[in-house]
Amino acid sequence: MTTPAPELIARFSEIVGTPHALTEAADIEPYLTENRGLYRGKTVLVLKPGSTQEVSAILKLASETKTPVVPAGGRTGHVGGHVPREAGTDIVLSLERMGKIRKIDTSANVIIADGGAILADVQKAARDNDRLFPLSLGSEGSAMIGGNLSTNAGGTAVLAYGNMRALCLGLEVVLPTGEIWNGLRSLKKDNTGYDLRDLFIGAEGTLGIITGAVLKLFPKPRGHQVAFAAVASPEKALDLFNMASNRCASALTGFEFMARMAFDFTVKHTDGARDPLSAKYPWYTLIDISTSDSQQSADNMMQALLEEALEAGLVEDAVIAKSQGEIDELWHMRNTMSEAQKPEGGSIKHDVSVPVSAIPAFLHAADAAVLEAIPGARICAFGHLGDGNIHYNISQPEGADKAEFVARWGEINTIVHAIVLSHGGSISAEHGIGRLKRDELADIREPIEIDLMHRIKQIFDPAGIMNPDKVLKV
Amino acid sequence: MTTPAPELIARFSEIVGTPHALTEAADIEPYLTENRGLYRGKTVLVLKPGSTQEVSAILKLASETKTPVVPAGGRTGHVGGHVPREAGTDIVLSLERMGKIRKIDTSANVIIADGGAILADVQKAARDNDRLFPLSLGSEGSAMIGGNLSTNAGGTAVLAYGNMRALCLGLEVVLPTGEIWNGLRSLKKDNTGYDLRDLFIGAEGTLGIITGAVLKLFPKPRGHQVAFAAVASPEKALDLFNMASNRCASALTGFEFMARMAFDFTVKHTDGARDPLSAKYPWYTLIDISTSDSQQSADNMMQALLEEALEAGLVEDAVIAKSQGEIDELWHMRNTMSEAQKPEGGSIKHDVSVPVSAIPAFLHAADAAVLEAIPGARICAFGHLGDGNIHYNISQPEGADKAEFVARWGEINTIVHAIVLSHGGSISAEHGIGRLKRDELADIREPIEIDLMHRIKQIFDPAGIMNPDKVLKV
Repeated sequence: MTTPAPELIARFSEIVGTPHALTEAADIEPYLTENRGLYRGKTVLVLKPGSTQEVSAILKLASETKTPVVPAGGRTGHVGGHVPREAGTDIVLSLERMGKIRKIDTSANVIIADGGAILADVQKAARDNDRLFPLSLGSEGSAMIGGNLSTNAGGTAVLAYGNMRALCLGLEVVLPTGEIWNGLRSLKKDNTGYDLRDLFIGAEGTLGIITGAVLKLFPKPRGHQVAFAAVASPEKALDLFNMASNRCASALTGFEFMARMAFDFTVKHTDGARDPLSAKYPWYTLIDISTSDSQQSADNMMQALLEEALEAGLVEDAVIAKSQGEIDELWHMRNTMSEAQKPEGGSIKHDVSVPVSAIPAFLHAADAAVLEAIPGARICAFGHLGDGNIHYNISQPEGADKAEFVARWGEINTIVHAIVLSHGGSISAEHGIGRLKRDELADIREPIEIDLMHRIKQIFDPAGIMNPDKVLKV
Repeated sequence: MTTPAPELIARFSEIVGTPHALTEAADIEPYLTENRGLYRGKTVLVLKPGSTQEVSAILKLASETKTPVVPAGGRTGHVGGHVPREAGTDIVLSLERMGKIRKIDTSANVIIADGGAILADVQKAARDNDRLFPLSLGSEGSAMIGGNLSTNAGGTAVLAYGNMRALCLGLEVVLPTGEIWNGLRSLKKDNTGYDLRDLFIGAEGTLGIITGAVLKLFPKPRGHQVAFAAVASPEKALDLFNMASNRCASALTGFEFMARMAFDFTVKHTDGARDPLSAKYPWYTLIDISTSDSQQSADNMMQALLEEALEAGLVEDAVIAKSQGEIDELWHMRNTMSEAQKPEGGSIKHDVSVPVSAIPAFLHAADAAVLEAIPGARICAFGHLGDGNIHYNISQPEGADKAEFVARWGEINTIVHAIVLSHGGSISAEHGIGRLKRDELADIREPIEIDLMHRIKQIFDPAGIMNPDKVLKV
């Protein structure tokens, strides 16, 4: 494979119009990197189509000329899925000009959006129509719906509302051949043949490009309350989650947990973050309750839960937010937790899941193994306890050499992922596979599973042009 | 293709042991039919394997010898999916000996069951452990988990808990080649490659046989209340649903509707069914509320909802159940509604869905078209309003000839399905495609979609042995 020739670049550019075909190094630069600096790719061309038909024409030409195409949304991914390969053979297709909300229907409770619609815009459109679109992520201000779907995004509201797969009713997809699949159905029930929709969701742009989606809306809750509660151990955090889950059922709309270290870094480095409690504790939880009827019922439910939890000895100390400002403050602290590790030097990150009940055992085993491998490592575990999803992040020991520490990424991943697998867990709970975990996936899964995925890839993308080398090795 | 030879029958029988290989006509009889009498197949062999390994050995031999295999669960399907073809070429593989609950884990809130576990047994195991497994169907006493998954079963609790796809975390599947895919994961979040699980779910046994599943459990609600409310029109029923949905959110665990005709037949023909209201009304709704905290809150919520609805002029009259007995009575009436049509002669049935907001328009258009085609036809529409799912059933005119009426099944389907499609609906909301709607599916879907399904079928089942001619035409 070679870099696309000038003549081919011209043919691609013609499809979108010259102003929307970037070829200057300075214009292309933002498409070559990702947030954590793990990958830096190369490309000679970034295309910004303005319609599904243009996406189709691009992919048709790409299939004919065997030109690899990397789809780009908000480029907020953590696994290198949107970065073109270093060889410079790939062109980038960005959905940023396709950001429209096509339709909102409050009687059917659906919103239809372009693949390039920004998540925050979809949330706002729902809010403006007295509805809730629940997907909620730190990067929601730039992440796009097509990328959220392609990575089956999770975030903080999965506990009550499910991940992106559960929030999607229908899709419009341009296949690698340029053919358009119109699956933009708004149906809650539709048992008519194989589930193509869920194949595209989570395929990380390797089976086609999602150009439109029908998403579910929910009634806007009338009551909302958040508490911050300190607990003595992961076991107590789990017990507290189970109590909250039994007591509040679907009104429990978030249950996050965080190790003291992660919390301390955030209080230290995030503007406006503060410790709402008067003493220090080893673990913290953030409990989010939404009720359909009234604010009073959310307040009562939270109050009753914390009283029962204190009485049962599950909680050391707790505060309930006294205003929307305090709710925002608590969630802001949680949402900036990953970012707050940066000033502390290098970090090695994991996005893993285990069955919810296995979280304490996983944490104890992983902490011991990591501290044995790197004495002084500062473990900033946090995440979505109710989903069994742990962002098991490790900051370098104080004063250690950053480059030396980060060079041990693979070694530490191997140690942590082995413990994850021994608990029946997943090495990628919500971030996906991309390039980062591609080879590891092939190692840990039975050959039949990887083989089936390769066969599926082959029938959707016979020319092998769609985001090659991501998820599966070419 | 020919009927399997005696020598081949012997090889298959050896795998399961002679007592579990049925070859006598009387033993085989129950496997040849389905509830509605639409199909009657033929076979020379019914195999009852006792383990996943035996299922694997059967499919391996079937692939090698190109012997078609029809998987059978509780055989309660409505589309002929479990009936062997008339030519007698197919053997039947019944999961009835694989009915174990393998494990129940109340801390992880999962239950792991064999593919042949009966739905009611899974519900009971959950209840016995103070949990809820919400899938709820008229045929739950005989339907099996493998079949529920293969048809992505729906039922009356989909509104709050989702269909079978939403209730499943992991699968064990024997592929048509005999290879075993162990995807028995208990994870709420797992973004590691293509979604094979959801391909098998809803594939109606054409891509492999589901031998085991990890299913989600939920906290058992502490409050439960049911009301029966008469409304003047489908429009009022929809407004009432929207009010209930906004007021109760996820506490609204069921919202069924039924035309007067369907209700009258049930009162007339179902043991123990009675009209709880003192006057007659054109439409009825059944509202089911479950609350996590207390019975009082369910009672209060229902009371407040009906008061508001009466005041808004949405409801003509209503009763709230005064005991568990009355709750059971109301649901029994609803669950036997399809059966109650039988004494009234022939019926032509539809299992369709439209966007929830389109239900009134669909009903008006369909009623007019059906009555124009068959004056005097008695329309027994009912279903899951909250899911947009209508069982649009039509009983013959009084005194008409049954055979003549039922012979118009295809003609009436065509009329009704055209109206469904004009509202962006689905011709199979929850029953699936099977044989009944196979050719129609190919007609109504874009060629690219059918083509992708055929390509998927080909890579999973290269020998073409798995439930052939169902969903897709061979």
